[in-house]
Amino acid sequence: MTTPTYSLYYAPGAASLVVHWLLLELDVAHELRLVDTKSGEQKRPEYLALNPNGVVPTLVVDGQPLFEAAALLMTLADRHPRAGLAPALDDPRRAHYQQWIFHLANAVQPLFRIWWYPHEVAGIAHADAAQAHVRPRIEAAWERLDAHLAGNGPYLLGDTVSAADFYLVMLMRWSRAMPKDALQWPHLAALAAKLKARPSFKTLYEREGLTEWA
Amino acid sequence: MTTPTYSLYYAPGAASLVVHWLLLELDVAHELRLVDTKSGEQKRPEYLALNPNGVVPTLVVDGQPLFEAAALLMTLADRHPRAGLAPALDDPRRAHYQQWIFHLANAVQPLFRIWWYPHEVAGIAHADAAQAHVRPRIEAAWERLDAHLAGNGPYLLGDTVSAADFYLVMLMRWSRAMPKDALQWPHLAALAAKLKARPSFKTLYEREGLTEWA
Ligand SMILES: N[C@@H](CCC(=O)N[C@@H](CS)C(=O)NCC(=O)O)C(=O)O
Ligand SMILES: N[C@@H](CCC(=O)N[C@@H](CS)C(=O)NCC(=O)O)C(=O)O
Repeated sequence: MTTPTYSLYYAPGAASLVVHWLLLELDVAHELRLVDTKSGEQKRPEYLALNPNGVVPTLVVDGQPLFEAAALLMTLADRHPRAGLAPALDDPRRAHYQQWIFHLANAVQPLFRIWWYPHEVAGIAHADAAQAHVRPRIEAAWERLDAHLAGNGPYLLGDTVSAADFYLVMLMRWSRAMPKDALQWPHLAALAAKLKARPSFKTLYEREGLTEWA
Repeated sequence: MTTPTYSLYYAPGAASLVVHWLLLELDVAHELRLVDTKSGEQKRPEYLALNPNGVVPTLVVDGQPLFEAAALLMTLADRHPRAGLAPALDDPRRAHYQQWIFHLANAVQPLFRIWWYPHEVAGIAHADAAQAHVRPRIEAAWERLDAHLAGNGPYLLGDTVSAADFYLVMLMRWSRAMPKDALQWPHLAALAAKLKARPSFKTLYEREGLTEWA
């Protein structure tokens, strides 16, 4: 028995999901450590020692704790190039790959932080206002991403799937209880269907005990 | 005369600043295109054709428009490796480098979007509440970054400067009019002093016509 190189601290369906999904896609040995975010385990000293931001995911790589879901996604895809989920540094598609991952990380995921934690932005009294204001911004993000896929799809980089698509589908999943969820946009729906048809998706759902949006 | 490989669409002091600063640091030919964000030029059809998000920066690389400041930063540093601003893919520091850039892009820069555009999150009536709520979150981010530098500095990656530090200093600059600006944290202040002492900073300020926080 060798110690796995990767240990993932996760909560079902959280931002850790895309890292877990990549570990399965890349078919690398890893162990899972459940973080009970409902009881606030991510704010306890033992966890903060690994990840001072007090959020999931944390991925321990060869003994070193690393955070930020999107960074972990890129790091894993680069460390296991045979799976072909990241264009190489000298590939002309590399710049677009990075553009899309940062677009999701900087312009889309933070809107979901508002959607899920609406009290954070302007207090509990204005949580409804925060949700009402973020909803059209999330819908505008889907609109632009769908337009990109319509002209350049079916994947973010065109004909080949990349780690960026897994990230996008995780974020789409987060919209499932919204008045207008991401699947209402046809090219986004087609992308999700492709990714959900991969065997890794079924394993991911089993391992995280997920049922919604299957 | 050869056509420059890089054209940067920018507004003084905006998120484009770090891309401009990197272009100067890497000493590569580029042209600047001023976008008059005050008059809304970034929302006009000609600009949206380059960047459908309607924000600066956009960097045109060999004729291809690319967006997302942090992605551009990484792409430039990787394309010009001799400057040593990005650890190579097989360098053990690469994962940390990516972690910090994504931390700034996902967990810090979006807080400044709220600080600068507080009406966006819960409406104009709650803009003050939005600013009041984001202020301690920005301060908590400085606190954590300062603690990291205290134990592992003086740069984010330790002894060597990287593109991540330029990004951090740009975000620190954005706090200059806040009740407690980033320079109140000693290790952050020391990092900013080092980066501001580089000749590129003076050129950057001259080119963008900046005076504040010099
Ligand atoms: N910047 C982080 C954000 C992660 C994040 O917000 N995680 C949420 C779950 S999706 C979390 O841990 N929330 C618990 C909390 O904030 O206390 C990343 O992308 O990894
Ligand atoms: N995700 C973008 C955000 C850029 C951004 O918010 N830029 C601001 C200036 S700092 C802007 O162009 N604002 C004008 C607007 O929103 O209309 C990036 O990081 O490049």
